[in-house]
Amino acid sequence: MEKITSSANPLVKKIRKLHDRKFRAETSLAYIEGVRIVLEAVQQNVPIEKLILSETFLNDPKREFISSRLKTKNIDSVVVTDSVFQAFSDKEGPQGIGAIISQKWLPFSDLTKVFHGIWVCLWEIADPGNLGTILRTMDGVGAEGVILTGNCTDPYDPGALRASMGALFSKNLVKSSQEDLIRWVKDYQIFTIGTSDSGKINYREVTYPANMLLMMGSERQGLPPSLTEICQRIVSIPMKGTADSLNLAVATGILLYEIYEQLNKVENTG
Amino acid sequence: MEKITSSANPLVKKIRKLHDRKFRAETSLAYIEGVRIVLEAVQQNVPIEKLILSETFLNDPKREFISSRLKTKNIDSVVVTDSVFQAFSDKEGPQGIGAIISQKWLPFSDLTKVFHGIWVCLWEIADPGNLGTILRTMDGVGAEGVILTGNCTDPYDPGALRASMGALFSKNLVKSSQEDLIRWVKDYQIFTIGTSDSGKINYREVTYPANMLLMMGSERQGLPPSLTEICQRIVSIPMKGTADSLNLAVATGILLYEIYEQLNKVENTG
Repeated sequence: MEKITSSANPLVKKIRKLHDRKFRAETSLAYIEGVRIVLEAVQQNVPIEKLILSETFLNDPKREFISSRLKTKNIDSVVVTDSVFQAFSDKEGPQGIGAIISQKWLPFSDLTKVFHGIWVCLWEIADPGNLGTILRTMDGVGAEGVILTGNCTDPYDPGALRASMGALFSKNLVKSSQEDLIRWVKDYQIFTIGTSDSGKINYREVTYPANMLLMMGSERQGLPPSLTEICQRIVSIPMKGTADSLNLAVATGILLYEIYEQLNKVENTG
Repeated sequence: MEKITSSANPLVKKIRKLHDRKFRAETSLAYIEGVRIVLEAVQQNVPIEKLILSETFLNDPKREFISSRLKTKNIDSVVVTDSVFQAFSDKEGPQGIGAIISQKWLPFSDLTKVFHGIWVCLWEIADPGNLGTILRTMDGVGAEGVILTGNCTDPYDPGALRASMGALFSKNLVKSSQEDLIRWVKDYQIFTIGTSDSGKINYREVTYPANMLLMMGSERQGLPPSLTEICQRIVSIPMKGTADSLNLAVATGILLYEIYEQLNKVENTG
């Protein structure tokens, strides 16, 4: 197996550059790190361009089953010295396993074909941790995919990847302009639920259909009127205290679990 | 008003040191920054040792109402040049308002006296953002306070303060050893709900009382047996996908809103 001993190696430079959103967009690649997320990527058949193992990881008997599991999958691997690994890792004391992966996006033009179940649309979500956390919750309720519209953070940002715990590999990711999204919702009569602090309907008073789009606004501003206009219902989560809103990922989680609970009850009794 | 023009000023050094948990613990102080959180602290009567304004903030006509509001409260203020402000601020392009505040903790010995309503107990919570987000959600449902037990992150960490959006000023904060907590729950028969991935009871199947303690474990390990043992019920949130847990702040939010919803229904109908 090839072994890299210098931080000046082009592969090392490439990994470092993958922290930069622009470079990720240009190459359609991303860098993931850690046992759990790499195994999740392998299991979900994410195309892996290169697997990177540190010497310590490779020689750790406890890690043998992981290394062998990855070997049988015929993944292109490279070993780096521990100091080289540390040079591109975000973490102090990294586990010593990482991978360069291909980004997977569903083209907007294919959305209608695959649309069923619960989808989430995020408008201008800014925080990568929130985006990753929402993907993790979507996995919990079995939601199918997310549509990112407006100026959103990148699901392949290291912070989003970390927070998603690998959930992003099993969800459909779609990017859409606001115009395309509005036209699509109208043309295909997608049942769309929006959220707002000033929504008059309590989120528990709505009957959610099995196929629907939950639309969440940005952390700072919520949804713009152009998007609330196309929603069948605008719901709100009641608030007792002085704050006027919840964290976006928490609010999305509360809504997704109400939808999940309703649909699950229907399944159980019907 | 005093004006600081050098980053070598002792006050500037003190603010920088307040980023360090040990120094915060020694002094029982914390540093907060931003219009919203400073106003929230003033409103909640948090003791303010020093208010810090940048020159730009002080001279911004849009900010006049804030400056005058703070002046009438007789808060000890200091003006710093913009470059000095930037020198201790975490943010790029800071708003130019910050404050050194006193930490407020409820002594464990006073807990029994004030205990009513919904309380949250967090065991070994590690992520400041999660802790702040949980406090923000607690504000949403009108929960009374949080008990931190084991090796927890600090609610006065800048990340926790940021995520709490000031909610921490209106909640009771209590620190407790695990032994004291267990004895307290047993002696006073506190109705305690624990959570676990392997809990057999769906969180929606439990009837929550008006006075109760919701116990959440750490991000990595959940609750230890020593704490699940003292719970009346161990509930779980159903999961459909490949991940085995939700983000801690999301899980806490889903549980708190189920409790809130049940108690609110009782209020409405009774």
